[in-house]
Amino acid sequence: MSLTVISYHRTMVRWEPDAAGRLRTAAVELFAERGVDATTVAAIAERAGVTERTFFRYFTDKREVLFADQGQFASRFVTGVREAPAGASPMDAVVAGLREAQGFFPPERRDGARVRAAVIAANPGLQERELLKMAGVAEGMAAALRDREVADPVATIAAQAGIAVLGAAFAGWLAEGETRELPELIDEALRALRSLTAS
Amino acid sequence: MSLTVISYHRTMVRWEPDAAGRLRTAAVELFAERGVDATTVAAIAERAGVTERTFFRYFTDKREVLFADQGQFASRFVTGVREAPAGASPMDAVVAGLREAQGFFPPERRDGARVRAAVIAANPGLQERELLKMAGVAEGMAAALRDREVADPVATIAAQAGIAVLGAAFAGWLAEGETRELPELIDEALRALRSLTAS
Repeated sequence: MSLTVISYHRTMVRWEPDAAGRLRTAAVELFAERGVDATTVAAIAERAGVTERTFFRYFTDKREVLFADQGQFASRFVTGVREAPAGASPMDAVVAGLREAQGFFPPERRDGARVRAAVIAANPGLQERELLKMAGVAEGMAAALRDREVADPVATIAAQAGIAVLGAAFAGWLAEGETRELPELIDEALRALRSLTAS
Repeated sequence: MSLTVISYHRTMVRWEPDAAGRLRTAAVELFAERGVDATTVAAIAERAGVTERTFFRYFTDKREVLFADQGQFASRFVTGVREAPAGASPMDAVVAGLREAQGFFPPERRDGARVRAAVIAANPGLQERELLKMAGVAEGMAAALRDREVADPVATIAAQAGIAVLGAAFAGWLAEGETRELPELIDEALRALRSLTAS
């Protein structure tokens, strides 16, 4: 009997190798199908094949699922800026931040990112939260630039221009029919930024 | 008796030549003194010397006071972009939008703007709303650029770079000890943007 319980427990563990990832997928799918308001934690857990208790081990509430990896995402930008060569210009340091961040969105995340973006676009409260998240990322990069002895307003403007570049590239990546991947779209957006101020 | 009433009524009207403006000042003062949550519409109306009914003639709720003129503000940017000369580059059209908008903040609005900014900085919900407002302004300028046959990603990036310039200049304008006015700070921020992409 004792052995059976252990074996059952092991099976459960094997069945949840990525409970957080499956909960994320299930939540985004349900949000897209029914809307955020009409989706319950119980429904998310059921679709992911876990209990509600497991849900709350990873997330504080259903909206949290959409933003749970934001710390990881934000830290990539800052790491990129920090680790840029000592002689890099402020803009080159920001570009290093974008290059570090682009790895967060490999080709296989594109479909999920499209669904997530549609969910957020349909919900003003989530839009505000997304904007606050990106404002935080910009402020993090600006602070990392100031640590590199870049003064304001250059630090703030460089960081925000970088976020504008990423935002435009990311919107392109999600657009229907766009087949280029994020790194190439970031190149294009950087060329657009440079062309603006060239004349 | 009838004459007295008329005269009383006229006096009331004379006492409210700018009820909306006085309500705005009273609200921002009280928010700064007590916080937004602890401030009631009754207290705002009382300080402005009007009734609560008058308050609700102008605003739907107390937070609305902080954002009531946002339509007017946003339309200045779009007007500037639209009315830029036909041959203006995308960035020059955006600069025309900023020049139109800077008139919204004459020197005499600086103290009030500082208090409003402190109130918003102390309140995450208001920060989100402010970000959403500025995102809307950027999108309005981007749409006006697209009407001028500027394609994306250039249109979006130009508009967002413009908002980054304005934001940096505005933060400078509100900073303690800064004596330069907004037009000069916008010049400085534009030079910062141009320096970024010059190399």
